[in-house]
Amino acid sequence: MTSSTAPTSASIASSATAAPALHCVPIALDQRSYDIHIGPGLLDSAQSWQGLPKAACALIVSNEVVAPLYLERLRLQLAAHYRRVEFVQLPDGESHKDWASLNLVFDHLLAQAADRKTVLFALGGGVIGDMTGFAASIYMRGVPFVQVPTTLLAQVDSSVGGKTAINHPLGKNMIGAFYQPERVVADLDTLDTLPQRELAAGLAEVIKYGPIADAEFLAWIEANLDALLARDKRALAYAVKRCCEIKAWVVGQDEREQGLRAILNFGHTFGHAIETGMGYGAWLHGEAVGCGMVLAADLSVRKGLMPPEFLPRLRRLIERAGLPVQAPRLGAERYLELMRVDKKAEAGEIRFVLIESLGRAGMHGAPDELVAAVLSDHCG
Amino acid sequence: MTSSTAPTSASIASSATAAPALHCVPIALDQRSYDIHIGPGLLDSAQSWQGLPKAACALIVSNEVVAPLYLERLRLQLAAHYRRVEFVQLPDGESHKDWASLNLVFDHLLAQAADRKTVLFALGGGVIGDMTGFAASIYMRGVPFVQVPTTLLAQVDSSVGGKTAINHPLGKNMIGAFYQPERVVADLDTLDTLPQRELAAGLAEVIKYGPIADAEFLAWIEANLDALLARDKRALAYAVKRCCEIKAWVVGQDEREQGLRAILNFGHTFGHAIETGMGYGAWLHGEAVGCGMVLAADLSVRKGLMPPEFLPRLRRLIERAGLPVQAPRLGAERYLELMRVDKKAEAGEIRFVLIESLGRAGMHGAPDELVAAVLSDHCG
Repeated sequence: MTSSTAPTSASIASSATAAPALHCVPIALDQRSYDIHIGPGLLDSAQSWQGLPKAACALIVSNEVVAPLYLERLRLQLAAHYRRVEFVQLPDGESHKDWASLNLVFDHLLAQAADRKTVLFALGGGVIGDMTGFAASIYMRGVPFVQVPTTLLAQVDSSVGGKTAINHPLGKNMIGAFYQPERVVADLDTLDTLPQRELAAGLAEVIKYGPIADAEFLAWIEANLDALLARDKRALAYAVKRCCEIKAWVVGQDEREQGLRAILNFGHTFGHAIETGMGYGAWLHGEAVGCGMVLAADLSVRKGLMPPEFLPRLRRLIERAGLPVQAPRLGAERYLELMRVDKKAEAGEIRFVLIESLGRAGMHGAPDELVAAVLSDHCG
Repeated sequence: MTSSTAPTSASIASSATAAPALHCVPIALDQRSYDIHIGPGLLDSAQSWQGLPKAACALIVSNEVVAPLYLERLRLQLAAHYRRVEFVQLPDGESHKDWASLNLVFDHLLAQAADRKTVLFALGGGVIGDMTGFAASIYMRGVPFVQVPTTLLAQVDSSVGGKTAINHPLGKNMIGAFYQPERVVADLDTLDTLPQRELAAGLAEVIKYGPIADAEFLAWIEANLDALLARDKRALAYAVKRCCEIKAWVVGQDEREQGLRAILNFGHTFGHAIETGMGYGAWLHGEAVGCGMVLAADLSVRKGLMPPEFLPRLRRLIERAGLPVQAPRLGAERYLELMRVDKKAEAGEIRFVLIESLGRAGMHGAPDELVAAVLSDHCG
């Protein structure tokens, strides 16, 4: 897989005012296809909400942090299309991505006698998107939903690919479904209210797309990281668009994660172990992935797949983004135990996404001793 | 829809000993197809378990009533194909068809680090089938599963069509997924241990297929009910096969219940209200459906769709099967409230499956007063 094969979609920018940063990335899947709208000002634009499935009722799912900022504006737009616009607030954070929170959605839907045409709107970050998508996939065996991601991580990652899930005490994202949204509306203005730590967490997933799929994009990120950190809309728009394009291209070839799609999990095997081992919420998902990429880069070098200079190059970029590059001291045994329940593991063998050349990744096993050596070099 | 359009599949019986009652009903769906094996002695036949997806681990899900009877025999067969054959026992009955029980499956799978190739086997009735299927659909976003139904109801109904679900305190089967098994193995010998009350509950679903799809089959049931009640294998085999054929034909045209498939819910709108209103488990599902068909038959007559003699004819058959024909006194208001959250309801309007002619059904609304009149005539 090389960068030259991941196609670039056309910008839909046409008016002068919208010129800086308005894109539409079409996601073409076998049975279900949808568009990702990317740009500033989309939340308040009537066009963003036209042509969605008709229903008597819409339910906005959000949390206590995002709802005060954007709920009323979204409600106002949706009131033009749905007789009733309901709202349910979930607790914020990865530590609440569980069945108890999910059930709040079902309690609300059933108390309101919401029928099987009801449309769910996920207003928030990746946790809200994952939970709302999963709730939509199993409420009355499936109702439509729309993603309105308000974090960089959700805009580049969880809004593409149809993966929805909740956590289980014994593993992250272990209970879930593949379920596609009707549309994704990624309003870049919502990133203005994002705490810097969460912006950095989103940049981890942006950086990821370079080494696994697009060497030129990696160079672009290195050149434009300061603009991204300063929330320059033009830079953000390009980054979100390019990530969605790459992910769409990968997912389009492998919707059910039988093969190629697994490369999107670069940094995630170590990352999930960090998240689970530290307790959900202690590290942000993007922080764990950022650090996990450093470890996976080292493993790629130690396996002889990449030249030694790849490790400091990637580590420097991750560090510049404001992400941790030292893994927590859980002990190698605990790491190995946590990684053996990873969804990519087969019959107890841990499988890692490793970089084979810049812009190309693949699945590899590794002896426990080699993994332990990597961990011992990067635990802070 | 008439009986002449629901095709009959060929018997696979070939050897002399298997002659009485061995059938294979193929279920052809867009992306996933599978076979229903019907006959005596299938549990102990190596052929029943060949050609399933390969995996390191199989998990048998059953309950405290069925496991002592059949677990070891199934385990013995599966040990020839899977390195590990795990078992998890769920509490018995509709009142336990909830998230807490479902989570016992996930706890076990994750504690054993069961990977995403693990095959689940549902050994039991409709509740075990629904829960195992739903667990399989969401564990690691989907693992394969096999149905081994041990009740008549599960053999004729829950093993065809891919509907899986759990209950919510505010509604039955409200949380679930459409998910197809790899195979269904319906061993008729397992019906020998079924309590008479559960056999009758299964007959409710058998009877259902007559009025909705096959007038000749209705007459066959009337002529063979005594043989069915006496558990004659030849009669049971024909009944199970014919029900699966009809259901497969309906589901094949409408996998996602957009239209035609809803006719399979004849008697279920009233039936679900009885089940939810009385508390899950007080009435068996089949008992509630049997009684619900009496009410829906009356509504069909009162709406002028069917001649008056249809009601006593169907009521007599349901009564002969040993099923209740008098609904519990919940009050018309409570019934209407419960039915308005039915999955078939749209924007608060209750929709009933009514009989339009023998072997043909359709969806109809009805004024609250007419429904109340029906309820007042049939509440015991």
